[in-house]
Amino acid sequence: MKSMKKINTNPISGMQELLPEAQATFNKLKDLISETYRHHGYLNIETPVIDRCEILLAKAGGDTEKQIYKVVKTAETAEMADQALRFDHTVPLARYVVEHESDLKFPFKVSQIGRNYRGERAQKGRFREFYQCDVDVIGRGELPIYYDADVILTLLDTFDKFELGTPVVARVSNRKILTGMLEGLNLQEKATDIYSIIDHCEKVSAEKTEAAFDEIGLTADEKDKLLNFMKLHGDYEKVIEGLIKLGIDNVTMRAGIDELGVVLKLVEAGGHGDAIRADMRIVRGLDYYTGTVFEFNLPEYPGAGSVCGGGRYENLAGYFTDLSLPGVGGSIGLTRLFYVLAENKLVKSQTEKPVDVAIIPITDNELNYALKVASLIRTGGETATVVASGKKLGDKMKYAAAVAKKGIVLGEAEVASGKYRVKEFN
Amino acid sequence: MKSMKKINTNPISGMQELLPEAQATFNKLKDLISETYRHHGYLNIETPVIDRCEILLAKAGGDTEKQIYKVVKTAETAEMADQALRFDHTVPLARYVVEHESDLKFPFKVSQIGRNYRGERAQKGRFREFYQCDVDVIGRGELPIYYDADVILTLLDTFDKFELGTPVVARVSNRKILTGMLEGLNLQEKATDIYSIIDHCEKVSAEKTEAAFDEIGLTADEKDKLLNFMKLHGDYEKVIEGLIKLGIDNVTMRAGIDELGVVLKLVEAGGHGDAIRADMRIVRGLDYYTGTVFEFNLPEYPGAGSVCGGGRYENLAGYFTDLSLPGVGGSIGLTRLFYVLAENKLVKSQTEKPVDVAIIPITDNELNYALKVASLIRTGGETATVVASGKKLGDKMKYAAAVAKKGIVLGEAEVASGKYRVKEFN
Repeated sequence: MKSMKKINTNPISGMQELLPEAQATFNKLKDLISETYRHHGYLNIETPVIDRCEILLAKAGGDTEKQIYKVVKTAETAEMADQALRFDHTVPLARYVVEHESDLKFPFKVSQIGRNYRGERAQKGRFREFYQCDVDVIGRGELPIYYDADVILTLLDTFDKFELGTPVVARVSNRKILTGMLEGLNLQEKATDIYSIIDHCEKVSAEKTEAAFDEIGLTADEKDKLLNFMKLHGDYEKVIEGLIKLGIDNVTMRAGIDELGVVLKLVEAGGHGDAIRADMRIVRGLDYYTGTVFEFNLPEYPGAGSVCGGGRYENLAGYFTDLSLPGVGGSIGLTRLFYVLAENKLVKSQTEKPVDVAIIPITDNELNYALKVASLIRTGGETATVVASGKKLGDKMKYAAAVAKKGIVLGEAEVASGKYRVKEFN
Repeated sequence: MKSMKKINTNPISGMQELLPEAQATFNKLKDLISETYRHHGYLNIETPVIDRCEILLAKAGGDTEKQIYKVVKTAETAEMADQALRFDHTVPLARYVVEHESDLKFPFKVSQIGRNYRGERAQKGRFREFYQCDVDVIGRGELPIYYDADVILTLLDTFDKFELGTPVVARVSNRKILTGMLEGLNLQEKATDIYSIIDHCEKVSAEKTEAAFDEIGLTADEKDKLLNFMKLHGDYEKVIEGLIKLGIDNVTMRAGIDELGVVLKLVEAGGHGDAIRADMRIVRGLDYYTGTVFEFNLPEYPGAGSVCGGGRYENLAGYFTDLSLPGVGGSIGLTRLFYVLAENKLVKSQTEKPVDVAIIPITDNELNYALKVASLIRTGGETATVVASGKKLGDKMKYAAAVAKKGIVLGEAEVASGKYRVKEFN
């Protein structure tokens, strides 16, 4: 039977739609994330995908405002649209914590695993609908630096569970170091530009980075200091030495160095010393980070880019409440990660057949018995499917061998004797 | 610290937003559904929530068209909106099967668990964002009646796994019976009205149903026959007797009676004879059902209404392809079900504390050791959280007792000796 499409049935551009085998692999990663987050004491919540623009855009601007999907009931016009799809988990979390504050225990260790939406320009490896898998710890009034390490450790444990067969490295810095340094250099007014240039430095050539510094009018000395700063990554002690050599004395900078040291030592104590590096190139684009910032990479796959990221923010919900809610969080962008892992053959689509046992009644007379056998097999913990489709036994066997690891053929004799053979398919 | 909201932080109307304890219970049900569907050999897929209106509205009309959420990027106007949020799983499944047809094995046993969107008038127990948990079997060209039973059995097994402590009953009919009967009575032109009146009969009084029949101009004899028809429910043999007594001889009707008999016997063979009833009041609103139709109820909680439903459709994707794709499916509306179960106290919010063990370092000096202990406990399979917040040990203990079942306090002595006591919280 040949099919003739009447309509374009591609998913819309920017959407990841997987075949069942790939979906099974994706789901396995998602389950490992959910399980590891839970194991570390994070409580799962789900917020609605649709929220009021007043909430979602309370802070946003720039790209976010341009990329957000507004929703309208068909009867309404766009001018009336006051609802939209969430573009991350952080804004709905802020609303959630303010709304349910009296019912939550602080520090609130919370996980969120779900789809978010951004109408970005569609391109390879960029998705408009994407899973984010977040952990956050929200304090009320105060939140010890310990929790920065708790988040990083939880995420590193999660990547361990993936068993990718290639190392994962957490590169960590602290925003206070650069902020303090820019204070010391009297460059606060150019801070936003400088953050952005450093944040992009690994994606462009050294010449372009230098040119960008020139463009914002840095002196040769300032430029030198920043370029030297950006060379500091790897061993914490050496990074500190390098920072001292810059000869800038600033209290914020010193606080950042201390915090970074504490976090690195805690992550080491948590068993992930091998996976963590201090790295001054880590800044993170979002301007709400105020302390620890981190990104995970696969050093053997530099093209994969950042596979996880996060940091400390001084106030989760300043736009929604006068409560002080400091937090620290991190997120695995699972849709992009899955794409990157598949591209680099670091996950195989579930090559295993999805069903353990196919029960194949020769005729419909054996259907009742087939159902009993299937039920028995499921009670034993295996998955089972009854194959009732196909004109001939050969068709049924072919289908069974395609979906299942083992098969049980049931004819008159098997029904009469109650005995059957389990055949392994190759 | 008293909080002062700056903005309304309610979720928008029609959204179910749960506290962590309730969310844990919800997730448990969702996991049981996913696990049972998988055990029965259904392959999970996920389709994008956003799709083209051309796809989503290919067939829809009436309420669907009015309720659908269109999405617009902010730069665009509503007139340009050609994308919207899916309102069920069936339409995206149709697109998926047509799009990926050559990569799928038929019969394609498929499950979908995810959120859908309808801008319905918000009211108690009605949600605008809701989880549907679907199983479907799609054939290519043909699909044996066996799969109707496969779907019902899978859903009944799922409800068993919930352990609600109250019976669940599957009420089954076959559209061909009523369709054939209306042919026999020469009432085909009034079929849509009659379907709708019967579909609503359990929500209104007997008088209203009679009045509705009068209103569409039925004769006393026609009305009598339909009222007698609607009284037929319970034991299959008695239902058949009753259908014969109606004295209508129609080939479609006879085919429907036979199919219903086959389905009921298969469900019995699958171990759920106690949970299944023939019931002529079951029609299902959607006009695409063409054979088996079913609804699940909780007889001890009549107010709960239908908690699951589905049926056979002759052609999944007639609007998208000329391929013949007969299917049968059913769906648990988990968001509504969870609401109904909670209302009737049939699920308790996870009263169990979410974390197994809280590790409480007395000072920050014991943090490193606390991380090692936490890691050890997780390796043993338990969930563990380190409590680092709180000025005094008493504050930490209070928090630990609130989130965890057991606690381990670590001071200098414990670090020195490597020995610690596990305390059970009440």
